[in-house]
Amino acid sequence: MFDKVLIANRGEIALRVHRACKEMGIQTVAIHSEADADAMHVRLADESVCVGPPPAGKSYLNIPQIIAACEITGAQAVHPGYGFLSENARFAEIVEAHGITFIGPTPDHIRMMGDKITAKQAVKDAGIPVVPGSEGAISDIDEAEKIAAGIGYPVLIKAAAGGGGRGMKVAENAKLFRSAVQTASSEASAAFGDGSVYLEKYLGKPRHIEIQIMADTHGNCVHLGERDCSLQRRHQKVLEEATSPALDAKARAEIGAITRDAVAAIGYRGVGTVEYLYENGEFYFIEMNTRLQVEHPVTEAITGLDLVREQILVAAGEKLSMTQDDIVFNGHSIECRINAEDPATFAPSPGKVTEFHAPGGLGVRLDSALYAGYSIPPYYDSLIGKLIVHGRDRPEALLRLKRALNELVVGGVKTTKPLFLDLLEEPAFVSGDYHIRWLESWLAERKAAGETA
Amino acid sequence: MFDKVLIANRGEIALRVHRACKEMGIQTVAIHSEADADAMHVRLADESVCVGPPPAGKSYLNIPQIIAACEITGAQAVHPGYGFLSENARFAEIVEAHGITFIGPTPDHIRMMGDKITAKQAVKDAGIPVVPGSEGAISDIDEAEKIAAGIGYPVLIKAAAGGGGRGMKVAENAKLFRSAVQTASSEASAAFGDGSVYLEKYLGKPRHIEIQIMADTHGNCVHLGERDCSLQRRHQKVLEEATSPALDAKARAEIGAITRDAVAAIGYRGVGTVEYLYENGEFYFIEMNTRLQVEHPVTEAITGLDLVREQILVAAGEKLSMTQDDIVFNGHSIECRINAEDPATFAPSPGKVTEFHAPGGLGVRLDSALYAGYSIPPYYDSLIGKLIVHGRDRPEALLRLKRALNELVVGGVKTTKPLFLDLLEEPAFVSGDYHIRWLESWLAERKAAGETA
Repeated sequence: MFDKVLIANRGEIALRVHRACKEMGIQTVAIHSEADADAMHVRLADESVCVGPPPAGKSYLNIPQIIAACEITGAQAVHPGYGFLSENARFAEIVEAHGITFIGPTPDHIRMMGDKITAKQAVKDAGIPVVPGSEGAISDIDEAEKIAAGIGYPVLIKAAAGGGGRGMKVAENAKLFRSAVQTASSEASAAFGDGSVYLEKYLGKPRHIEIQIMADTHGNCVHLGERDCSLQRRHQKVLEEATSPALDAKARAEIGAITRDAVAAIGYRGVGTVEYLYENGEFYFIEMNTRLQVEHPVTEAITGLDLVREQILVAAGEKLSMTQDDIVFNGHSIECRINAEDPATFAPSPGKVTEFHAPGGLGVRLDSALYAGYSIPPYYDSLIGKLIVHGRDRPEALLRLKRALNELVVGGVKTTKPLFLDLLEEPAFVSGDYHIRWLESWLAERKAAGETA
Repeated sequence: MFDKVLIANRGEIALRVHRACKEMGIQTVAIHSEADADAMHVRLADESVCVGPPPAGKSYLNIPQIIAACEITGAQAVHPGYGFLSENARFAEIVEAHGITFIGPTPDHIRMMGDKITAKQAVKDAGIPVVPGSEGAISDIDEAEKIAAGIGYPVLIKAAAGGGGRGMKVAENAKLFRSAVQTASSEASAAFGDGSVYLEKYLGKPRHIEIQIMADTHGNCVHLGERDCSLQRRHQKVLEEATSPALDAKARAEIGAITRDAVAAIGYRGVGTVEYLYENGEFYFIEMNTRLQVEHPVTEAITGLDLVREQILVAAGEKLSMTQDDIVFNGHSIECRINAEDPATFAPSPGKVTEFHAPGGLGVRLDSALYAGYSIPPYYDSLIGKLIVHGRDRPEALLRLKRALNELVVGGVKTTKPLFLDLLEEPAFVSGDYHIRWLESWLAERKAAGETA
């Protein structure tokens, strides 16, 4: 096992990894930007190295500085967290070229899943259901029009190199197809320097359901059930839960097994998540994330596993300590992403935290690097904490979430806490009957109602 | 189900009960002394009533004021927490005489278990193993000497009305017996106004192991396994764990079944704990606590149950939602009692909390009514928080405890946190090989070593 791990991240996820390391008797090295010298992940780490000024490009994404930090401190492994360099195949290669273990999948798997078209082909070959669409990027517009007719309208046009909704258009019918392709391709060129687009069946009210998998380097692979991440705003997850209100044990076992077997067939190692859209009982592959995800704690809550610990064990070459039969799903868990944002406008609200009080008691977990007196810098993601509750069933988890939110105090900055308290009064959310476009329409309705009130 | 519950307590346990109520959709009424107007349990409650000045005798023990608070607010039930009026049979009677539900056992059961001699007789008749000793209080010193010889020396002499170590003496041999009885009886008279004493076999290095039980008013009763509370200082528990390092599944099931069946036979309702000394594979009854205990969260951690919720459900007349077969013990849990005390001298350290930061992350629960800026009043128990960790096994729980303790920040007052960090370095504790007298001898050794260093 490693003696010392460098954590190439900041905020709550750096703290999350630090905690797992300490519970394994591993020394931790924090990296930080000049803006983060007083951050919690730096305060708690055994050692820390400043890797440059903000923004992230000059520090948290500064590969030479991070490698130097490993060498100076003698770290034997690097945990990239999520975001930043976590899905950068080149970084993983450079880390390993320096004789340091990258706690994550191989560079080849990161690269395979980083390109939407090769990813889709790879998982399709391995038995994962994909959304009907073009085989790769479209080259000829007449040919594409025939494919679109075969898929059936509405058809979605997506940038091959894309993400975050840019270079994405819906063609409602055949008449609008060519102009939609043109617009999507122009946007893709501008945003990603690559105008390639591909076609997919458009789903109206799908849920976002993802399967967590975990594989070692000895050929063992398990799935840890699903997370439902359908509450989204601008393609960003806002609240996640496990299990999904839409799946029963049979559906869970089926898609879990398909996903696990496919990921095993690819020869994947470490933790990873296969994301699906789910509509009318059918799953359609979106993408595979080759890293730990923000929402991993809901899976930890219902399985009793520590996913970061498992990542580190796998990276050290150990065999998984469990088989699929050992994994039992226990109760229900919900995570709220608490952002330092105006809950009405979602404008970032950085600044000094004058007061901070964490909720406590039974079934409540807070993953946050905040403390009273800390100044949230303006350079980074606005996520300041994840509130995770676990109950015996979904109604209990909802009630627990409400009481825990009511206990949370963050003074000095605006947070999205009020949004979640409002959501908890909303019948569609409480009943679990929502889809990936529901939150935005609810927000729009609220806004409209507010304006007319 | 009740609409509104009055919580007749303060501090972390008042907050604990509040949380359970909120998660059941029940409104809460806090009571408080004049010294506690700013306390967390008051801040979070839906309503609050001041019941008098400190000390507790004038407020938290002021029965007429508490009954008035129920009547003013329309509370339908009272939860007494632990301590204060929780084992006061007269209070339970008065509450019920006012048509208010007492969330706890019947006054008769409280009374039965409140007297050590009647309690011992009652549980013995119900099949619970008791320590060999005199049948009730001794009346004739010559007769008592014969009984002592039959038990075998050393013999323990205990006050019938006693508790907390007062009126308790060990007679090492027959020569010292009479003077020990005299001393114990005088102490008992002075402390409790009753000089009655009884005799028991003296155990040298026993563990304190207690069985949690839960019964409804429909004849159903389950046990929730044991807690090991052998780490004690001056008969006060300092750290508790479940399961006990000394019991295996077979021993647990055996003493659990004996205890459950006995408690069922007595016709008990609600939660309760039967405390035992355990030595050489034998259990000896100490007493039964007819209330929720400070250390209940370790049982919640390994069973997944919410004991306060179950108390409230039983008090409302509901049937237990589980049978013995449904109860599975999962992993290992440890609780530290964080006191506002000097960790070397144990002198209370009340005062203003200038900084407070709760540990977070996976497997960590903090039950505390502290907040930054709060002033710990000098009038009450020094317990300011309970840090509870849960891991897949004892070694994982120990590592988690260490990292969580390292995250805990309480500024402005002294706390016992350093004591627990030191304990975690102590082989006897880490191995689980300790007994009820171990902590005091370890503390004495440390003190001696510190004085000579």
